[in-house]
Amino acid sequence: MADYQTARTVAAVSTPPGKGGVALIRVSGDEAAAVADRVFLPAGGKALSALSPRRAVYGRIVRPGTNVTIDTGIAVLYRAPASFTGEDVLEFSCHGGTAVTRAVLSAVLEAGAEPAGRGEFTRRAFLNGKMTLTEAEAVGLLIDADTESRRALAAGAASGNLSRAVAEIADDLTGVLTALYAAIDYPEEDVGDEGERAIAGVLAASLEKLRALIGTYRTGAAIAQGIPCVVAGLPNSGKSSLYNRLLGRDDAIVTDVAGTTRDVLTASADVGGATLLLSDTAGIRETEDVVEKIGVTRSRERLAGAALILLVADGSVPFTEETAALFALAKAAAPVIVLLNKCDLPSAPLPEGAFGGAEAVLRVSALTGAGMDTLTDAVSRVLGTDRVNTSTDAVVFDARQEAALSRGASLLADALSALDSGDPTDAVCTLCESAVAEISGTDGRAVNEEIIDGIFSRFCVGK
Amino acid sequence: MADYQTARTVAAVSTPPGKGGVALIRVSGDEAAAVADRVFLPAGGKALSALSPRRAVYGRIVRPGTNVTIDTGIAVLYRAPASFTGEDVLEFSCHGGTAVTRAVLSAVLEAGAEPAGRGEFTRRAFLNGKMTLTEAEAVGLLIDADTESRRALAAGAASGNLSRAVAEIADDLTGVLTALYAAIDYPEEDVGDEGERAIAGVLAASLEKLRALIGTYRTGAAIAQGIPCVVAGLPNSGKSSLYNRLLGRDDAIVTDVAGTTRDVLTASADVGGATLLLSDTAGIRETEDVVEKIGVTRSRERLAGAALILLVADGSVPFTEETAALFALAKAAAPVIVLLNKCDLPSAPLPEGAFGGAEAVLRVSALTGAGMDTLTDAVSRVLGTDRVNTSTDAVVFDARQEAALSRGASLLADALSALDSGDPTDAVCTLCESAVAEISGTDGRAVNEEIIDGIFSRFCVGK
Repeated sequence: MADYQTARTVAAVSTPPGKGGVALIRVSGDEAAAVADRVFLPAGGKALSALSPRRAVYGRIVRPGTNVTIDTGIAVLYRAPASFTGEDVLEFSCHGGTAVTRAVLSAVLEAGAEPAGRGEFTRRAFLNGKMTLTEAEAVGLLIDADTESRRALAAGAASGNLSRAVAEIADDLTGVLTALYAAIDYPEEDVGDEGERAIAGVLAASLEKLRALIGTYRTGAAIAQGIPCVVAGLPNSGKSSLYNRLLGRDDAIVTDVAGTTRDVLTASADVGGATLLLSDTAGIRETEDVVEKIGVTRSRERLAGAALILLVADGSVPFTEETAALFALAKAAAPVIVLLNKCDLPSAPLPEGAFGGAEAVLRVSALTGAGMDTLTDAVSRVLGTDRVNTSTDAVVFDARQEAALSRGASLLADALSALDSGDPTDAVCTLCESAVAEISGTDGRAVNEEIIDGIFSRFCVGK
Repeated sequence: MADYQTARTVAAVSTPPGKGGVALIRVSGDEAAAVADRVFLPAGGKALSALSPRRAVYGRIVRPGTNVTIDTGIAVLYRAPASFTGEDVLEFSCHGGTAVTRAVLSAVLEAGAEPAGRGEFTRRAFLNGKMTLTEAEAVGLLIDADTESRRALAAGAASGNLSRAVAEIADDLTGVLTALYAAIDYPEEDVGDEGERAIAGVLAASLEKLRALIGTYRTGAAIAQGIPCVVAGLPNSGKSSLYNRLLGRDDAIVTDVAGTTRDVLTASADVGGATLLLSDTAGIRETEDVVEKIGVTRSRERLAGAALILLVADGSVPFTEETAALFALAKAAAPVIVLLNKCDLPSAPLPEGAFGGAEAVLRVSALTGAGMDTLTDAVSRVLGTDRVNTSTDAVVFDARQEAALSRGASLLADALSALDSGDPTDAVCTLCESAVAEISGTDGRAVNEEIIDGIFSRFCVGK
């Protein structure tokens, strides 16, 4: 880690590419101050490295060893470890033209920096202990975020909401490990039945917290990655109008995503605080989509990938067997919200139990927009986005996080049952240690040293 | 001006749109510090407005009146007049995602700022005397610059190269005006013949400087706006290969520009430090381009808009009458550089005076690239880019500047001939004053007060 940290001073344009009033060029590493003095001539005459750090200094950016002005701008020098990466960091704000940023970056590279790799500044921040792994992942999500829901989730995680929750569980378990190790190393200090019950209590409580945390992944993924949602319906149910209305909503961000199948494109819509990845069926002729015509197999295929199904039925005409059949297929595939469309027309009566097992049955009008707010509410409820405050709650939002925490939960469950079955303490201890390793590993913490520190810090002095 | 300055506090995202590590949101106006305190919670706890200005302070950006983190980032507060705009300026560096920048900007607007108009920060800088009008135009060019030549020209002008040259001429003429006014107001202090000769000398010298400055516009425009360049040639001369080689050069930036005629697209190539706006004839069938087939009229039309013509002829075959006819048409339209292509093959002899009046006759190979450096040199020489150091010299680069300076030169010439003809002093004085107004107006300076200040500061005390 130290090698990586000090090996190279790297530089890159940190602002988006293109034209703008301002661009920012960032340099990180031991040579940052030296690079600054080679390419930046402060208006005050004194070298930037001789001025107080974190001061926005105006001056000229020049090619190293020349007096030729590339641009005028602001330079700020941050001194390690009080910087984004934990290293010396230099930031130039110059004019945001493509030729200017290219020229400033070349000057910086000519002055001794090397081009930074993808995500290298954040990587260094992680490696230098300035942020955890989940915080780094949150920074990535924050930059990618195109909707307010995603931004809020990412900003919360970037400020450590998830890291703190994970650390709390890991800390509790480290306490248990201390006691277990003590019992092994100092058998005369037997933990006793009471101690064992206390340990079992902590393990069980930690397991519960862990499972609750893992349980947030469904919501986190629905926001961060989005969830596959199929809009299904018989011809003339107004499926297409509803689809278009979902994409045309003021708070929806519509993005075309490369399709996974030949016929289907996917658009993402921000609905009810979640990201719905809507299958675009515009290219498929409506008649092909009728259950009796295309057959059960094809309908089932289309519905199989969905994590949420919006079933559109014409609420102004009597309920048909075809609708019942489609609903049955949908219900077998994923949670279903039934939308009785055309509520601007007189409603046809609905047989009792017609949509039994649906998450919600809502009367809406894709034409007028009536009732669409009830859909938003239903989606929030089904996907759990109404139960989390993404700004303040710990939410698991990445498959890697979920997998690591799940492995931890599984090992912890094993440790608990080993303890219950009266297995030898060292067996419990090994399982518990592996659980802590997985859980702490979620945040990229090297675990063994932490565990050892934790253990010895709780020993009394002189032992 | 003061009203404009204090009327509104404005905000905008100053970095290019899109995704990146960092985005910068800028706020300018009297309320900048108050906005900062409403939306930014420094990690140290103390309000940003209470800390020293120009310090890069880390903290949380929140919605006004809440504790909900939108993002964490760096804030810098500049105090008037030591800022880009000359007003209080607040700059936030936040994460460069679209949702994040949108949310930070909304928070800033919610905190009392108003959305900034196009170029409003630079406009305020100009109105508050932080930069001249030509410097402001240079900032615009700097942001638009996609080639190194454009960047160098813009950076030079943005650092005041042109402004200083204009000011020097205006100052000399203001000195003359002082003397002339004194002669009018205090007739007992007659300037006399010697004084008149001195005045005529200054006027003549200023006119010469002014004309030299105006003369740089051809080069400035060739760099800043680019010049229309037609690649002409008979079929099989290798015209298309040459065109492609020009666009494929390592130092060329190829941009598609919306065409002005139905058939013709324009691509810009950085050649010899100038920007050549090459007419793309790829869409026109080569045979249609032959002089004898399409007729003299059409060829003349195509060549008429050119400010430079690259005439391509096959140097491996004998010189023909058709080539001579095309060259005659070209020479009548614009400066011509003749490229005897296919120099990789044995050269056919060229009759004496075959291309008389050409700027250069060069043997090149579009196929191998041989001789292309001689084309670069010839273009520099023809367009004058080899005679200016754009980083240090005063160069007129905008039609508005050229027009204002030309009006000034014309008035100055009139003043000089009025003086020579022995016209009344007040007539000379009026012409001279108008000339100074035009020349100073190039840089957006309100002139009358400056002239008056200049005049009275040169009067002795007590007069």
